Amino acid sequence: MDIASTARPQLKLRRIHLDTGRENVVVMARRSMALRPDVFRGFSRVELRSNSRTMLATLLLTEDGLVAPDEIGLAEPAFRRFAEPIGTPVTVTPAIAPNSLDAVRAKVQGRSLDDAQIRAIIDDISHYRYSDMEIAAFLISSASYMTSSELLSLSSAMAEAGTKLTWDRPMVVDKHCIGGIPGNRTSMVVVPIVAAHGLMIPKTSSRAITSPAGTADTMEVLARVDLGVDEMKEVVNACHGCLVWGGHVNLSPADDILISVERPLSLDTREQMVASIMSKKIAAGSTHLLIDLPVGPSAKLVTAMDAMRLRKLFEFVGDHFGIAVEVITTDGRQPIGNGIGPVLEAQDVMAVLSNDPAAPKDLREKSLRLAAHLLDYDPELRGGKGYVRARELLDSGAALKQMHKIIDAQGPSGCVADLGTLTADIPAARDGVVEAIDCLRLNRLARTAGAPIDKGAGIKAFKKIGDRVEQGEPLYRIYAFEESQFELAAAGAKADNGYVVGTRDATGNRRR
Amino acid sequence: MDIASTARPQLKLRRIHLDTGRENVVVMARRSMALRPDVFRGFSRVELRSNSRTMLATLLLTEDGLVAPDEIGLAEPAFRRFAEPIGTPVTVTPAIAPNSLDAVRAKVQGRSLDDAQIRAIIDDISHYRYSDMEIAAFLISSASYMTSSELLSLSSAMAEAGTKLTWDRPMVVDKHCIGGIPGNRTSMVVVPIVAAHGLMIPKTSSRAITSPAGTADTMEVLARVDLGVDEMKEVVNACHGCLVWGGHVNLSPADDILISVERPLSLDTREQMVASIMSKKIAAGSTHLLIDLPVGPSAKLVTAMDAMRLRKLFEFVGDHFGIAVEVITTDGRQPIGNGIGPVLEAQDVMAVLSNDPAAPKDLREKSLRLAAHLLDYDPELRGGKGYVRARELLDSGAALKQMHKIIDAQGPSGCVADLGTLTADIPAARDGVVEAIDCLRLNRLARTAGAPIDKGAGIKAFKKIGDRVEQGEPLYRIYAFEESQFELAAAGAKADNGYVVGTRDATGNRRR
Repeated sequence: MDIASTARPQLKLRRIHLDTGRENVVVMARRSMALRPDVFRGFSRVELRSNSRTMLATLLLTEDGLVAPDEIGLAEPAFRRFAEPIGTPVTVTPAIAPNSLDAVRAKVQGRSLDDAQIRAIIDDISHYRYSDMEIAAFLISSASYMTSSELLSLSSAMAEAGTKLTWDRPMVVDKHCIGGIPGNRTSMVVVPIVAAHGLMIPKTSSRAITSPAGTADTMEVLARVDLGVDEMKEVVNACHGCLVWGGHVNLSPADDILISVERPLSLDTREQMVASIMSKKIAAGSTHLLIDLPVGPSAKLVTAMDAMRLRKLFEFVGDHFGIAVEVITTDGRQPIGNGIGPVLEAQDVMAVLSNDPAAPKDLREKSLRLAAHLLDYDPELRGGKGYVRARELLDSGAALKQMHKIIDAQGPSGCVADLGTLTADIPAARDGVVEAIDCLRLNRLARTAGAPIDKGAGIKAFKKIGDRVEQGEPLYRIYAFEESQFELAAAGAKADNGYVVGTRDATGNRRR
Repeated sequence: MDIASTARPQLKLRRIHLDTGRENVVVMARRSMALRPDVFRGFSRVELRSNSRTMLATLLLTEDGLVAPDEIGLAEPAFRRFAEPIGTPVTVTPAIAPNSLDAVRAKVQGRSLDDAQIRAIIDDISHYRYSDMEIAAFLISSASYMTSSELLSLSSAMAEAGTKLTWDRPMVVDKHCIGGIPGNRTSMVVVPIVAAHGLMIPKTSSRAITSPAGTADTMEVLARVDLGVDEMKEVVNACHGCLVWGGHVNLSPADDILISVERPLSLDTREQMVASIMSKKIAAGSTHLLIDLPVGPSAKLVTAMDAMRLRKLFEFVGDHFGIAVEVITTDGRQPIGNGIGPVLEAQDVMAVLSNDPAAPKDLREKSLRLAAHLLDYDPELRGGKGYVRARELLDSGAALKQMHKIIDAQGPSGCVADLGTLTADIPAARDGVVEAIDCLRLNRLARTAGAPIDKGAGIKAFKKIGDRVEQGEPLYRIYAFEESQFELAAAGAKADNGYVVGTRDATGNRRR
């Protein structure tokens, strides 16, 4: 008999409007009438039971009226997940830890896990049975090493924990960039090109977490992105492609949970990145996948060796799951496109699709290159003709037409697409040539200016690496709506604008 | 220029009666007037500044009236540590992570840390600059391996992070048991014997965390234990020894913080245990230390090999810091003494010190053995005479007299020392001989009955390993005060009483 199975006094469910992020948190009065929370000393995890539901949660105690002695308060995510009305009688007992935590502890001690153990861990995590700290224990113990078979098990278990999409086509292509480069909104050019060709490309994207814009944030400037699975399928069937937010499609929900814990810890290991991306692609039913690895001094990958090791991991997992994976390295030394922030990036994308002469060439060229790789998968197309075909679809306006079709199919988002009304031009400190641009710095400044929350906030770059500049000439413009954020961003750019401008001295030798 | 250094609107400090354990937690309204918490998306850590103080904390957002839009709510530990009055204007910015987190990430990636890195980590932890998750990252990454020099750095850094006691005697002895065995209240017999002999033994002990009684909880039945450093020194100078709670003495506060995170994760690695114990002994000024390692099937150490490896670590750290460490293994197959729970254990201790014929012999014998080891440190004593001297001090009543002196010096605790009024005798299921007792099970049952919160709750054992029992004869008695806890404990004991009783069949072979 365990403690939980004995009849216990019941508490009334109360809702507490406290956003505890991902974690289930409940609050009880220290002088609880129904049972003595002292019993829980040493157990911060409790199990809640109503007639129809059970849930594990982390317990906090309160001294005053936040909850009455005969109540139990459920913070936001716990209230939503428990999904019982206010006032429901709830029994609370110290939680029995999920069995899979034994496997986590084994991993912490340095042992490798088998497939069943990893599946059990992911199952418990995706059912919100782990505390954030328990998730951290799994992630951190996996960060120092993960075997090849652990990587496969993790990818597969995460893929199976959520929605699995199936398509009635033999070939479903996808692309993915590991991120970190400002702008770089290639998916929004690649998808219409590839879809216009007739290949199926059901693209789901993330919103920005720590960056000034994700593809989902940028696409939302043009169309609704929070589609469910059925709506997404309708769009793809009508247009061969889509550009939607992954959040409502529920592919690999365990991955979203893991990321929410990795982020505050700044954990970012190769294996976890690969398992995260591949689990989503397996669940999305992709058959052919192109991975974009930008390499540069302020990119996620700094050397070609870093990129090569990551490439091998993607290929290994892809081969195992029968997905044709191609991995290419790209120039990650500077932003791709001129805009940084949702509206500015959407403008870049539409300029490229419209063949606007002022459209950023780097975004056009990179998108064509990526689209070419995907089109080369098409057995109907003569070998090596992918690039020519991609350019043809772009130059002819077919890609733009396809984009409008996708936008119409996804529907209007209702977002305001105005640019920030407060602007500041950030000048070059001296004459010279742009030698380097700090991607992290520009991302941070654009975020400080209000992106992605303010869709029209951000940065528009006027100069790229290799461009000549004169002292006082603007390097970029900051856009913002809110005074305090505008001042912060402008002052931040004044202190460190993220650009390295080299000069030549009288002897013609370059110096910085 | 970083974001934090710019002037920002201020919020009014409010107190939130929410006990968030060890972690600093603050609450802001999602519609905060003074700044937009959206800025903090992706930053769950914030920095608070008043005119005189700064503090790092984890941020939660609320939708309703828990805090007003112009307020910031500080949960209990944050409010206590920030120590500013309600209404104080507070500036909030996204927190810059402590630099030492880079070292934690290096450790997560499998690199070893040097002394300066470990010192920086412990300094930040002991100043509450880490979130629980960040502490977990350090602990978990250290759990899979820790080098010898990391172990020394950790022990030393933790010892230096709090109070350091100094004594004007060349020899300061101490004892420590790694715990896990019910009862086993040897310190309360050993300290009066050793102090009666005249050696200095300033003993600090912990309260129970997950067990039904710690030495501090048990001593509190007899005397006040929450002494500060100066009070403790007075008692030791007057009596040669003391039995106080370590909590107010502030030895190795970083260790207390680490333990609060290890516990919910059930992390319990050898190196962390050794660093934890040795940091407290270094800080306490001990020169001679006896470590008690109980070994048994339900003890913390299951095999002699486990104990040997742990012994070597204690010796290694002791040698490095010039502490004479002796490590002995003891019988950890069953409870030591009959009582489990503060009052019952205090009765055992006083029975042994009073030479009561009914006193538990195992507690007496083990205490004499430990005291003998400590007395043998005395250069004045003839080699090997420690045991005889210890027995002489106990049998003559000198130890009892010394105990009363210590109790008087520490003063009355005001605790009620009554035994639980609800009792149940748990009977043997059949005739036979007690072959094993599950220490974990008895600890849990005693805790379920109310110990250590109810000092008079717990278990009194009537039978030990090797004792004959008849079917229906009581194995032990449960004591409790509160009806629901009593019923839980009694039902739990009925389902699994923790005793293995072996029988002999007709052929004389033993079977279970």
